[in-house]
Amino acid sequence: MRRIYTQPPRARRLPVTLLGATGLVGQRVISLLEGHPWLELARIIASERRVGARYGEVVRWQVETPPPADALALRLESPEPDGDLRGQIVISALPADEARALEPRYAQAGALVFSNASAYRMEPDVPLIVPEINPRHLAALATQREKRGWPGAIITNPNCSTIGLTLALAPLKRFGLERIVVTTFQAASGAGYPGVASLDLIDNVIPYIGGEEEKIETETRKILGGWADDAFAPLATRISATCVRVPVRDGHLEAVSVGLAERPAPEEIIAAWREYRAEPQRLDLPSAPQPAIIYREERDRPQPIADRLAGDGMAVTIGRLRPSDALDYAFLTLSHNTIRGAAGAALLNVELAVATGLAG
Amino acid sequence: MRRIYTQPPRARRLPVTLLGATGLVGQRVISLLEGHPWLELARIIASERRVGARYGEVVRWQVETPPPADALALRLESPEPDGDLRGQIVISALPADEARALEPRYAQAGALVFSNASAYRMEPDVPLIVPEINPRHLAALATQREKRGWPGAIITNPNCSTIGLTLALAPLKRFGLERIVVTTFQAASGAGYPGVASLDLIDNVIPYIGGEEEKIETETRKILGGWADDAFAPLATRISATCVRVPVRDGHLEAVSVGLAERPAPEEIIAAWREYRAEPQRLDLPSAPQPAIIYREERDRPQPIADRLAGDGMAVTIGRLRPSDALDYAFLTLSHNTIRGAAGAALLNVELAVATGLAG
Amino acid sequence: MRRIYTQPPRARRLPVTLLGATGLVGQRVISLLEGHPWLELARIIASERRVGARYGEVVRWQVETPPPADALALRLESPEPDGDLRGQIVISALPADEARALEPRYAQAGALVFSNASAYRMEPDVPLIVPEINPRHLAALATQREKRGWPGAIITNPNCSTIGLTLALAPLKRFGLERIVVTTFQAASGAGYPGVASLDLIDNVIPYIGGEEEKIETETRKILGGWADDAFAPLATRISATCVRVPVRDGHLEAVSVGLAERPAPEEIIAAWREYRAEPQRLDLPSAPQPAIIYREERDRPQPIADRLAGDGMAVTIGRLRPSDALDYAFLTLSHNTIRGAAGAALLNVELAVATGLAG
Amino acid sequence: MRRIYTQPPRARRLPVTLLGATGLVGQRVISLLEGHPWLELARIIASERRVGARYGEVVRWQVETPPPADALALRLESPEPDGDLRGQIVISALPADEARALEPRYAQAGALVFSNASAYRMEPDVPLIVPEINPRHLAALATQREKRGWPGAIITNPNCSTIGLTLALAPLKRFGLERIVVTTFQAASGAGYPGVASLDLIDNVIPYIGGEEEKIETETRKILGGWADDAFAPLATRISATCVRVPVRDGHLEAVSVGLAERPAPEEIIAAWREYRAEPQRLDLPSAPQPAIIYREERDRPQPIADRLAGDGMAVTIGRLRPSDALDYAFLTLSHNTIRGAAGAALLNVELAVATGLAG
Repeated sequence: MRRIYTQPPRARRLPVTLLGATGLVGQRVISLLEGHPWLELARIIASERRVGARYGEVVRWQVETPPPADALALRLESPEPDGDLRGQIVISALPADEARALEPRYAQAGALVFSNASAYRMEPDVPLIVPEINPRHLAALATQREKRGWPGAIITNPNCSTIGLTLALAPLKRFGLERIVVTTFQAASGAGYPGVASLDLIDNVIPYIGGEEEKIETETRKILGGWADDAFAPLATRISATCVRVPVRDGHLEAVSVGLAERPAPEEIIAAWREYRAEPQRLDLPSAPQPAIIYREERDRPQPIADRLAGDGMAVTIGRLRPSDALDYAFLTLSHNTIRGAAGAALLNVELAVATGLAG
Repeated sequence: MRRIYTQPPRARRLPVTLLGATGLVGQRVISLLEGHPWLELARIIASERRVGARYGEVVRWQVETPPPADALALRLESPEPDGDLRGQIVISALPADEARALEPRYAQAGALVFSNASAYRMEPDVPLIVPEINPRHLAALATQREKRGWPGAIITNPNCSTIGLTLALAPLKRFGLERIVVTTFQAASGAGYPGVASLDLIDNVIPYIGGEEEKIETETRKILGGWADDAFAPLATRISATCVRVPVRDGHLEAVSVGLAERPAPEEIIAAWREYRAEPQRLDLPSAPQPAIIYREERDRPQPIADRLAGDGMAVTIGRLRPSDALDYAFLTLSHNTIRGAAGAALLNVELAVATGLAG
Repeated sequence: MRRIYTQPPRARRLPVTLLGATGLVGQRVISLLEGHPWLELARIIASERRVGARYGEVVRWQVETPPPADALALRLESPEPDGDLRGQIVISALPADEARALEPRYAQAGALVFSNASAYRMEPDVPLIVPEINPRHLAALATQREKRGWPGAIITNPNCSTIGLTLALAPLKRFGLERIVVTTFQAASGAGYPGVASLDLIDNVIPYIGGEEEKIETETRKILGGWADDAFAPLATRISATCVRVPVRDGHLEAVSVGLAERPAPEEIIAAWREYRAEPQRLDLPSAPQPAIIYREERDRPQPIADRLAGDGMAVTIGRLRPSDALDYAFLTLSHNTIRGAAGAALLNVELAVATGLAG
Repeated sequence: MRRIYTQPPRARRLPVTLLGATGLVGQRVISLLEGHPWLELARIIASERRVGARYGEVVRWQVETPPPADALALRLESPEPDGDLRGQIVISALPADEARALEPRYAQAGALVFSNASAYRMEPDVPLIVPEINPRHLAALATQREKRGWPGAIITNPNCSTIGLTLALAPLKRFGLERIVVTTFQAASGAGYPGVASLDLIDNVIPYIGGEEEKIETETRKILGGWADDAFAPLATRISATCVRVPVRDGHLEAVSVGLAERPAPEEIIAAWREYRAEPQRLDLPSAPQPAIIYREERDRPQPIADRLAGDGMAVTIGRLRPSDALDYAFLTLSHNTIRGAAGAALLNVELAVATGLAG
């Protein structure tokens, strides 16, 4: 899927520096930046031993659309932040351990680091943003800067399996989210490349993904919670997850059961999803899906193959809402794990920052 | 997998009549009867238009071990029950609609019909038996015979996705099963052949299986419930299921969350599973797995490819027991859907009937 | 993949009537016609019992991009050709048996029928066209009309596995195609929906596709041959095929070995592919890939997932050219079976006819 | 599949030392040795850092039947050959590079090394044995010992994709094998674990396997050739291979086209396969399939799922013999790549050596 943006291009596009460009998420960022009306890939940072090589010489391209020629020609630059980066936009698609070491140095140098890594997501002064849900958590940046003494900042987006869940839950928050049981059917691309061995996914599924269940549980509470008095107040809800890898390339499907304090009628829930409009849609951000949430009536949807590219991979598709005997309702939600769940999530955070004057 | 039986063969094996021999379940019954120490495939019943043909001429064999030569040579016989069938053992692997029409005629003629079909499972006078759980439900046969005036009877086994769940839940009943949320990862063979289209399961999963969720919910309550005063008393538990088809040949994996009235420690639950011994194990029935339930400590088990053949396909493998924030505990259970979940289930019911003097 | 056409739209787009709209190929035709600069879907023909229903009510949409709203709203019309169809463009995505009955009636009524069906491909007066290879075979239409007395005509495109092979072979014809051994890895979508059973393609491949090998052999000779003295002169070449179905959604990969009379150097062969420019490219037809043939240097290409959408699914990707000890050279070729191999092939034939004044 | 041996057990089973026990082939060797009537797993050799650990602590078991308890309890021993190993049987399932370093040291110490590794297969004094085809090549051992001064020796078996091909070709040798074109559909297990990435085999095939095509070509000529005057005389035949990885767990399918000097009738070829009896069958070796070659008449066989376990995974299944226009005949052959193509091949070589007095 080549992303076609409909917003008018800005006279001068803002330069973006990319950390972690060779993995599946980094590649997806590059792919999404092609033709972006506001942003432009300017610099690719790599490990020291690759500095000077062209991107096209080191990447094993895996996105289904061809790599942009401009990106292939870029020379890889040193990971050492270089001078004063105040006002610079950095997108980080680094693995967690590298992110932990490198991202603070860019924030220290003044850059706004939009990170897809898990390293700082749960820090008490780092916002974990889904623009449709908790843009106000950006208020934590003041605390972050003060506490850490950074001219820049780190802004994170959630794990790929959290984002589809939280977007489905956010409109239900008003009904009182008491309990949430979620079981995931996660795509192979979520583990990167080479990632999961083919012998683990031919005639098989793997009922364990390291750290994933904890991420869903803790991140969901933080995202759906508030920011007040210089601290995050996680949503008090009982949530547990079981994460399973299935033989699918892209698209995380999640089976969700919820207990709701106010017992809404099914139509109220569907209406809450369908009528959900939020900041990115109101601001008409380039990567914002219109609508963010699609509810489908067919009895066998959402499916990865049919729904993962809804809203150019940025929408969440929900289906099969029905009463649950064990809790109150059950439904399924699906989102594209490397677009909505990673690269597109970071990009939407950048766009939100630009549109609200935080960056650019 | 060729089943190797370890019990000594009886001097005279009991003849078995098979209804519905060409489907995946019927084939599996024939495969499991090869070398069976107590039972012998004697007659194969087919639709009128195929009567007289040899089984080998009409079957498209799909079991991974070769078909028994004796079975291939059998001539298909008429579906019309023929004379007095009192004491005869009939196994039915018919589709539900054919079962509904044909099984009562065999019971009327005196046969004991061991049915894998859903047609009569939920009838108020038909026992739905998992020998490890509710052998006492066979007491319902007296009511059935009286009410229907049949010299024979219909005895059913559960749906393929119910059986792995109920075997995992039965040992937990003593802790008070308050709530059960189950999400299934079901194998393609559960839909028969041709069954699910390959385009639905390449790079995809299908989050809907017609009628399956209702079967899990109602059958589980019946199996775990009691029989008293000429009626079944379903277990009062809140249960809901989400059923999803995944690209796996055999083996249904199920992610289960449970709320338990008495909050046992994890070790108590694991001990309850590991120490579970029941009628088929005590009677050492030929198809009874020893043990019936296997609990694995590895963090990524059970998996279809590794665990579906445990106990020759008759054991249930459980893993990943852990506290659940939303309910009390979560775990995964796996069983072979065409062996433990269908053909082997019917066969174990026959063996139970033989061992307890009901048949043979 | 939503097809983005770059040619300027015509002031008045030509109306197209579609036969066989609900299958995978028909759906793909509808998808490719969305936004087409020259053509417009005007009528959908269905079997009598569905006449009057809207397309959206009867189709089970399987293309990865959403169905065009206009198409969904069209009412299905009767298969009976209606009045004088002279100058009308009809695309047929019918199954062979229905095509055999229906297409002549449309040709009789004056329509130009562009057929993807196999029914008339090998008729001695019916052109089997790949616009990059044998546009001159359209000369056979005069004979067809004279012989059959039709004011209209039938123009066919080849089978999905033939087209990738012939496009790879056409540039090699000048080297003398003596022998061709081809083994295919064919995608599941080639069999339509539901098509191949999932149990046949999980942990398995199926080494037989009915009629496919014969089609490759006879169609290739016809396409690469000539038209002279009112008759097709098939290319005298020794060709044999083995066709295997593999667990891939779209994209037929073919391993080809060739014996060539003139032993060209590898570079000459690669140059022949890379420099191949033909009628559709020269005419800049809307669906013509630029270039038609892509040769890749990587040692592990072409692959279905990476290359099937090259040239918007209309290009053929070739790789791994190397000397063969058994014949002269071996290579692999890949093309998208429902775009280049079916719907796009028919569309390109229509565009060729329009551009050369035969239609429109 | 648990292997059930039918030969009577020897009073004293011969001890076997295993090199490379943790990979897929090593595991399969251990699995096949369970219950073997002649041989017994005595020692497992591992890299220095693992010495002293139990096998059960280091292996990630992947064979579909459970690991033998005896093997799990064995302590790993040092790779340094220990004292005089004359008469000892060593099976090597090492990777090629480790085999190159270690196997000669065991031969030097006196052991008979039965190697599945590619390291020494093509050496001019190392026999490459398929017991059904070229047991006489063992005569090369005299030369090997003389030349290398080893009291022991190295005996190799072919690559997993060679063995199914050579077993199909051996009976055709009498017809004059002029040309052979082979295209493979190779299972993921051939690359070991983790091996091929799942993203490479979901909705995809990979048309390249490093070194595989050369192995098929050179090994086939050596195996089908002779040994005379202290040298191997490779069969003079023109052979070329294209090797493709497909989403199958086990079982390599190969599409073969052959040119034969004497143009036999199809029945003669099928008879040649069906009547093929060779040394292992005559000696009734424990692992010898009876028969070695199965020809199936069905039009869609062999298939991996249906045929890979024929003859307990040691038989080769052939099907679809038909005239080929390009050469003379085409057919398909299938064999289990980790049993017949690796672990079982080494074991059969051991058994041949034992039965002929070379070992034991």
